[in-house]
Formats: sequence, structure tokens, C-alpha cells
Amino acid sequence: MKFTVAQLNYHIGNFTGNKDLICKAIRKAKEAGSDLIIFSELCIPGYPPLDLLDRLDFIQKCDQTVNEIARECTGIAAIVGSPTFNNMAEGKKLYNSALLLSDGKIIFTTHKALLPTYDIFDEYRYFEPEKQFSVCEFKGIKLAITICEDLWDEQPFDNEFEKTRLYTLSPMEELARQNPDIIINIAASPFSYTKIEAKENIFISKAIKYKIPVISVNQTGANTELIFDGASILVNKNGEIFNHLPFFEEAVETYSFENIISGSIAGKEDKTDSISLIYKALVMGLRDYFTKTGLKNSIIGLSGGIDSAICLCLAVEALGNENVKALLMPSRYSSDHSVRDAVTLANTLKVHYDILNIEKPFRAFEDDLALIFKDMKRDITEENIQARIRAVLLMAVSNKYGCIVLNTSNKSEAAVGYGTLYGDMAGGLSVIGDVYKTDVYRLANFINRENEIIPQNIITKLPSAELRPDQFDTDSLPDYSLLDSILYQYIELQKPASRIIKEGGDRETVLKVIRMIDFNEYKRYQAPPVLRISSKAFGAGRRMPLVARY
Amino acid sequence: MKFTVAQLNYHIGNFTGNKDLICKAIRKAKEAGSDLIIFSELCIPGYPPLDLLDRLDFIQKCDQTVNEIARECTGIAAIVGSPTFNNMAEGKKLYNSALLLSDGKIIFTTHKALLPTYDIFDEYRYFEPEKQFSVCEFKGIKLAITICEDLWDEQPFDNEFEKTRLYTLSPMEELARQNPDIIINIAASPFSYTKIEAKENIFISKAIKYKIPVISVNQTGANTELIFDGASILVNKNGEIFNHLPFFEEAVETYSFENIISGSIAGKEDKTDSISLIYKALVMGLRDYFTKTGLKNSIIGLSGGIDSAICLCLAVEALGNENVKALLMPSRYSSDHSVRDAVTLANTLKVHYDILNIEKPFRAFEDDLALIFKDMKRDITEENIQARIRAVLLMAVSNKYGCIVLNTSNKSEAAVGYGTLYGDMAGGLSVIGDVYKTDVYRLANFINRENEIIPQNIITKLPSAELRPDQFDTDSLPDYSLLDSILYQYIELQKPASRIIKEGGDRETVLKVIRMIDFNEYKRYQAPPVLRISSKAFGAGRRMPLVARY
Repeated sequence: MKFTVAQLNYHIGNFTGNKDLICKAIRKAKEAGSDLIIFSELCIPGYPPLDLLDRLDFIQKCDQTVNEIARECTGIAAIVGSPTFNNMAEGKKLYNSALLLSDGKIIFTTHKALLPTYDIFDEYRYFEPEKQFSVCEFKGIKLAITICEDLWDEQPFDNEFEKTRLYTLSPMEELARQNPDIIINIAASPFSYTKIEAKENIFISKAIKYKIPVISVNQTGANTELIFDGASILVNKNGEIFNHLPFFEEAVETYSFENIISGSIAGKEDKTDSISLIYKALVMGLRDYFTKTGLKNSIIGLSGGIDSAICLCLAVEALGNENVKALLMPSRYSSDHSVRDAVTLANTLKVHYDILNIEKPFRAFEDDLALIFKDMKRDITEENIQARIRAVLLMAVSNKYGCIVLNTSNKSEAAVGYGTLYGDMAGGLSVIGDVYKTDVYRLANFINRENEIIPQNIITKLPSAELRPDQFDTDSLPDYSLLDSILYQYIELQKPASRIIKEGGDRETVLKVIRMIDFNEYKRYQAPPVLRISSKAFGAGRRMPLVARY
Repeated sequence: MKFTVAQLNYHIGNFTGNKDLICKAIRKAKEAGSDLIIFSELCIPGYPPLDLLDRLDFIQKCDQTVNEIARECTGIAAIVGSPTFNNMAEGKKLYNSALLLSDGKIIFTTHKALLPTYDIFDEYRYFEPEKQFSVCEFKGIKLAITICEDLWDEQPFDNEFEKTRLYTLSPMEELARQNPDIIINIAASPFSYTKIEAKENIFISKAIKYKIPVISVNQTGANTELIFDGASILVNKNGEIFNHLPFFEEAVETYSFENIISGSIAGKEDKTDSISLIYKALVMGLRDYFTKTGLKNSIIGLSGGIDSAICLCLAVEALGNENVKALLMPSRYSSDHSVRDAVTLANTLKVHYDILNIEKPFRAFEDDLALIFKDMKRDITEENIQARIRAVLLMAVSNKYGCIVLNTSNKSEAAVGYGTLYGDMAGGLSVIGDVYKTDVYRLANFINRENEIIPQNIITKLPSAELRPDQFDTDSLPDYSLLDSILYQYIELQKPASRIIKEGGDRETVLKVIRMIDFNEYKRYQAPPVLRISSKAFGAGRRMPLVARY
């Protein structure tokens, strides 16, 4: 008996594409003599389909595609994930299902019971939870087929409530009574750099608890914000990792059941540090956004600062230098080194760049507004005008040449609102909006690990928005290492101010930072989608009321 | 025995404010000799608190406020809505609860069972559903206390699935076995102009089914996008409407139990047409956004077209003319009547206006870009530059004078992407982003019903963006009445293209319009919050993947 794990990159709603991908893997598995190939959760429509699930025709298309794939399953069976109709009179209209296909037929169906509805997940919006469980006997082996969270009934959460059992049911506990031989878990679980070990431990602990091996199959690839790391894992019946599929790559691998039960392959595990995984995640996120929207060209406003430098490096890696343009837009406040450093970087990366000085439009706006602003002091208004002129120029080039503006704001800025709406906050996709400034530096050093790609001066100079003379980020913000530590505690760990202070945070600084975060919800509401690498990114996974007073 | 219905306007997270509001109503009810005052769902934190519910300190604050209010309940009892801790080892951390307070204590607690998780609702994100039900005996009367959706187990949905029972449980069916004397329903149910009768019918049908009266208590007021209409309703045991509280106003009314059972007050029902309700809803939405964020001043780009004209009227009604500024920003393509009509309107409404011609910055951008755009044809790029210059000017005045830019895009434009990101799509709040263009005209006629406030020429002239010579909306879009009919079927009714065509839509037009809607998801992702008046507005209630191919 042989199992094949298919870790693939699906495209939401692209039924033909997903079917081709799946059928190719089926053929490969057949060649390897496999009996059963396992695909990931909701692989038929791609994950997450969101409100496309509200369309009857979309679900009919899923059904039709499942049937077409079933007909390819001759001499091999396949487990696929798809939404299916709930035919009961009551309850949500759909199930999130795992289907076992063989010889043109669906020979076994099970539905997801534990429906994640937190952070970026909205599954109870669409699906009815399953309440009954049975193992599936296939070629004499009893399979406990579970869907993602069904196996995660004891996962720990980042919050103050200390509640670790989110669900009142344990599907695996029910299945265990029927003495399965192996646990199969199909998932669509996005990457978070803080959750790599926690995820592994879920599978390890279940293998140990039930004394049977676990095959987990995750998808890879990115769909807008969400980046799926793959990293499918096989754990033997002793809870040892038997094999790890690669991070951020497609893979189709075949194993014999006997090997999975007790084998352990030494040295195969990908023990990379978090910064290289973040780098790979962002590259995949960028690449897939372009591939899946069918677009090719990008443009970045290159300031000579570290954020846009990193984004340019990532874009070149993801899209190729021929598909990346840089626009340098110095102002009367730009320092000489800004343009020089930006040009050096663009030359190193062989990226086409143009230089447009923003002085003329800036003067034109100043003249236009002079009457209305008569006798009023210069303030942040004039700083914002400059940032917005740059957005107008970037968008103009983007419109004329058909490219996407990549946004270069980092998470620390986005958190405290240190950015201009419709200015440097503009763009089709935020590349590093989930990367704290301190990690931006780590990424720079990672990119420079062999050669100096990013000029050292970009890394060492004091961060500045250069929107007025002698301006530095530290004029209005705490030192980034201090700032990021407060941000992480408040955003990711969801600690209240009182606890951050009690644990050593300076009272005034903590309160000021939190006030800035809360006050700037309205800016983030209109920010572009952010490639997500953490357990709590800005965007759909963090829903805050704009008019709250708290 | 006397009941008081308290239909109030709460502010999310403003515990002091909400408590004051509640205590004032309690005092008023006491003066009227009431035995029991009923407040709406989650009135303690305000609805919807969203991810503030993930904060332990926020829930503790709710607890504390409930206890403080309980101490005010001497000689009267009160039903309030608040999140409470789920003390079981398993399940979500909170319940959405109704608490009966009397003499400083919580004497009865029940939790919501049917947790809406669709459209703008995310309640299963936070709350564990209740599974057990009991009536509450109070002064010899058995109360069936239900929370909003708990009574809506048979509501019809706008979609193709024809599934009308979203839930597998009927809390009221369980409660009915205990022979209650009256149904009390506390809700936080937002306005939708298509659902007014459907909502009434829910209460009427339950009264008829169980042969007991129903008191429904809804909140009023707006929290960012969501506008709550109040319109609390009392239905007697024969299913006749006994009383209707006003739409979009606070009210505290006391009734004797005997009257509620079988009384029916003729002529009290507010049978206003939908356009006047939409008008009131938008005024309340605007006013509350400013009141609750603590801001005062607004600015509108006044083009001489109908959309910005309507928004100006609404803003003046909501905020007072002294808190509204208009900015006229003609270009080389503006027609004379645009400025003239805009000035007439501003004068009629006694609104301060400034005129800034955008020619100078437009020239400056053209000069700057000339080198990069050499030999390339003029296209939509130059149109977008003009729209973005206007956004820069509006935001500059907004920054300098501390006012919020009101966005004036309508739903038809937003749907098909007929607008410029960071241009006319900019603003802190979208006033009419959920109003189709055909309804914009109906609003104009409603505003002009007694006097010509909006110059007739604004209403009758052909809609034009005036971004190039002789441009009209109909150059790129179908006639608005045709367009809106397709949009409504696709967006609100969620019909697939095939069905819209089958039911008489022109194939080519329908497909073109739907392609435009789907393609422009990326623009709407960055749009400001939209005041919601329909059953399906753009924004948080409609979640579409950006990279789908479907």
C-alpha cells in the first residue's frame, strides 16, 4: 500500500487550472505505483473562496469538477477537498468536505466539524459543522480522514483569556473509537512565522496519543494576503517526524505505508530560520499575486530608504528584474545620499529607473492653496502633499504602462499611522506591511548575506521620511526596537496596556503607542491588502470598529 | 405590570456614555411606574464591538458596567445585553447574553443560540451558542427572553440556494414548551430598505404561532457603516401591531401588559416610503460618524453633478451648514454650468465654498511625466491624474483645517469601477456608496419635494465625469436604469449571469457589467467605509477574493 502526498498551488475559482494540476499529480502518483493520492482542503475551488461560496453556480462547478477528476481515478484513489451541498432541510447550505474518489465515483465523504471562525477565517459563514464521524476502510486500512482544524481541538491561542479548547467536540476522539490505522489531515493552513513548531506539535501529539501515524497535507501558494507554506508533514506512530515536504514549493511524494508507520528519515527536515522563511513567503506572495491576477509588471517608489529597498529586492526575486520599474521622486528635502543609494541599488539589481523631481507639482499645489492657507503655519499638510504627489506619479506611470504599484509601508509604520493615506500608503499590494521595522533590517542583512546587494548606507542611516528639513522617524516615534516590542505585545499577543506596563513597559510610551494604534484604524481601513506572515496581520484578520471610544 | 421599551443610541466601548444613557432611561421608566425596562442586544459595549471582544479587559469592563447598572435597578428591573464569560472548559470564550437585573443583582441570564455569521455579521467569531433554554418568571409573568436572531430561525435569504432554515435549532420552539406569557426579543438589527416588512413579519408570525404578544427592542444610531433603524415593535397576541417606535430616533416608552396582550393602536405606524427612510438613515449615519469619532467639520468636493450635490445636502442636514465646506475644483474640461450649478447649491445651503482650478498642478504633472510618456497617447491616465489632484487638494484642506473628506461615489459607480482610486474614491466616509444612481435621483427629488434646493439642471443634465472633452457616463456604461437593474440582481439577489440573462437581460450587457464588477474588487478593497442601507453593501458584508479567476 502506497500513499502520495500532493502539495500544490491552487487558484481560486480556476477550475480548469486546478483540475489540470490535480490530474497531473494523479498521473505522477500512478507512475510511482501509488494506491491513494491525497490533496489538500478545498483544493477544487482553491482556498479561501470567500463569498464565491454564496453562488449556486460556483458550487455546481465544484461538483462537476469533482466528478471529472473522479473519472481520472482509475487504478488509484484520491482524496480531494471541496464544498458540497447540505441536503438537510436545516442548517447552513454547504459542508466543507473531504471526498474519496475511485473509478469515477465518490466512495466516501466526510465533512469538517471544527470550523475556524477567528482571525482571517470565516468558515462558519458558509459551512454547517459535521457531528457524526466514521473511519473509512480502504484496501484493508482504516483511514481517519480529518479536515484541518478537526485535528486542532486543543490548540493554544494568543490572547488573555487562557482558553485552549475552542471547540466542544473532538472529531479525532470519536474516530479513535473505531480503531483507525492512520490519521489523514487535509488542510489549507496559512504561514505564520511564529507558529511553525506549534503546527508540527499538533500532528506529533496526535500520533503519540493515538499511536498511529499522521499524514498532513497542506497547500502551498498565495491567494492575495494569505500565503500557504505547504510544509506538509508525515509523523510516524511514535510521534517522530518521518518526512517534511518543502516550504513554499509544490511537491508530489509517494511513500509506502510500512515506512510511514515507523520510519524516520534523518536530516530531511527543513530547519531554516524564520527570516529566510519570511523572505520565501513574501517572494511567493508577490509572485502569486501577479501570476493569479494575470498581471506582469510592477513599479516601486524608491526613496533611498530601507523599506523600498527591501521591496525592490523581493520584487526582483519574485517577478524578474525585467518586470520591475523603480521611480525615484526626490523633493527639496531629499538628501543627496537618498538618490545616490537608490540609483546604486537599482543598478545592482539591473532595474530600470526614472527620476522625477516633485518640486514642480509641489509648487503648483502650494500656489493653488496659498489663498486658502493664507497666514496659516506649515504643518503636516505640506508633508502629506509631497507623499501624495508621489502617489499620483506612481499611479500615472502604473496606468500608462499597465503595472501594479507595490506598496512599501512596514508594519510598524502602519500600526502607528506613520504614513500618508493616498500617499505612501497607496499601492495594489503591500509587500512588507506585516513585517516590523526591526525585521525589515533582518531581511536586509539576509539579502546581503553573501554580497552587498543593498548598499550598506541604506541599512545604517537613520530612518527618515524626508518630508521636512532634518526630519527623522525618532522625532515622532520611539526607537524601533522598543516600538516593535510594544506593538507585538499589543497586536499579536493582545495584551492590554496595563499588562504591558506591569511587565516592564514605560507607562507613557506604552500609552502613547497604543493611542496611535487605535487612532489610526481609519487609515488602515483603506490600506492595500497586506502579505500576511504573522499570526495577526492588519486587514481582514483584525476587525476593529472605527468609531469606538475605548 | 408595566413594561418599558428603551430604544437608544449606544457608542461602542464608551462604557460611561452607555451607562449614563441606560440609567437615564431607567429613571424615566421608574417615573412612569414601570416594572421592567428592556434595552437592546449588547447595549453595554455597543454593537458591533468586533475584535474588542478579544480583549479580556474589555469584557471585564462590560461586567463592571452591568454591576453598576444593576445597583440602579431598585424598584424596577432591567433587561440588558452584554457579553459574558463562558465558564465551561470548552468552547468559545464568550456568550452574547441577556441579563435581568434587579436590586443590585443579576437574577436571570440567558445566552444567544443562533449566532448570525453572514453578510456583516461575525458572531460565531466570538460567541459560544447556547443550547439550553428556560423562561424567566418575573412578577408572576413568564418571559421568553430571546436575543435577535434567536427568533429568526425561519428567515428567508437572498440567494439561489432556496434554503430558508439557516439553523438546526429553534430556541422559541423550546421556550414555548414552558408556556411563556410574552416573548421579549432584544436586537441590534441594522437597517435595510428592502427588509422592513420582512422584519415585522418575523414578530407577527411568532405572535400568531405562539398566541402571545411580542416586544422587540432594537437599538438606533449608527456605528461607522451600520445604521440601526430602531423601529422597535410591539405585536399583540393576535399578531396585530400594537405599537411601532420611531425610525432613527431614540425613544423610551412604557406600556401596561394588559394593553400589549390585545391592544392595537391604530394609525401609529410609521408607513413612510423607502426613499424617506434612506434619507433619514444616511443623515443619521453621517451625524453619528462625526459625533462618535468626536470630529466636527467636513469637506466635500462639489463638482456640479448630482452625487456631490446630494452628499452636500445630506451633510448640511446631518452636521449643520457651519460644519460643511465645499471645494469646487474645475479643470480645462469643466463646463460652465458645473461651476454655476455648484455655486448656486452652495449658496442655497449657505455653505462656505472655495474654488481652486486644477490646471496648474495638472500642467506640472504633465510636464514632469512628459519624458516618460513621450510619444504615448493620452488615455485614462490623464483622467485619473485630474481626479487625484482633486483628492490631494481636498485632503490638504482637510489636513490643514481638521475636517473629514466626505466621499461622494454612488453604488453604481463603485460596482463597475467607474471611479479613480485615490481620486474621487478618496474620503473618510462614503455617504452614498450603497445608493444606486437611480436612487440618487429619487433622493434628489425627495430633497426638492417642497422647494428647489438642488438646482434642476443638476438633476436633468446628462451625468459626466468631465475628465475629457464631451465625456458622458453613457460612453462607457449602459443607461443607469438598465445598469442598476443588473447590479441589483447580481449583488443583492446573488443571481448568476446565466439566470439574469434567462430572465430577460441582454447577454452582452449583462456579461460586460458582471466582468466590470468582478474586475474592480481591488478598487473597492481600498474604498472608505460605506453607509449601509441595503441588504448587501460593498465592504465588510461582501468578501470577495481579489485573485480569483471565475
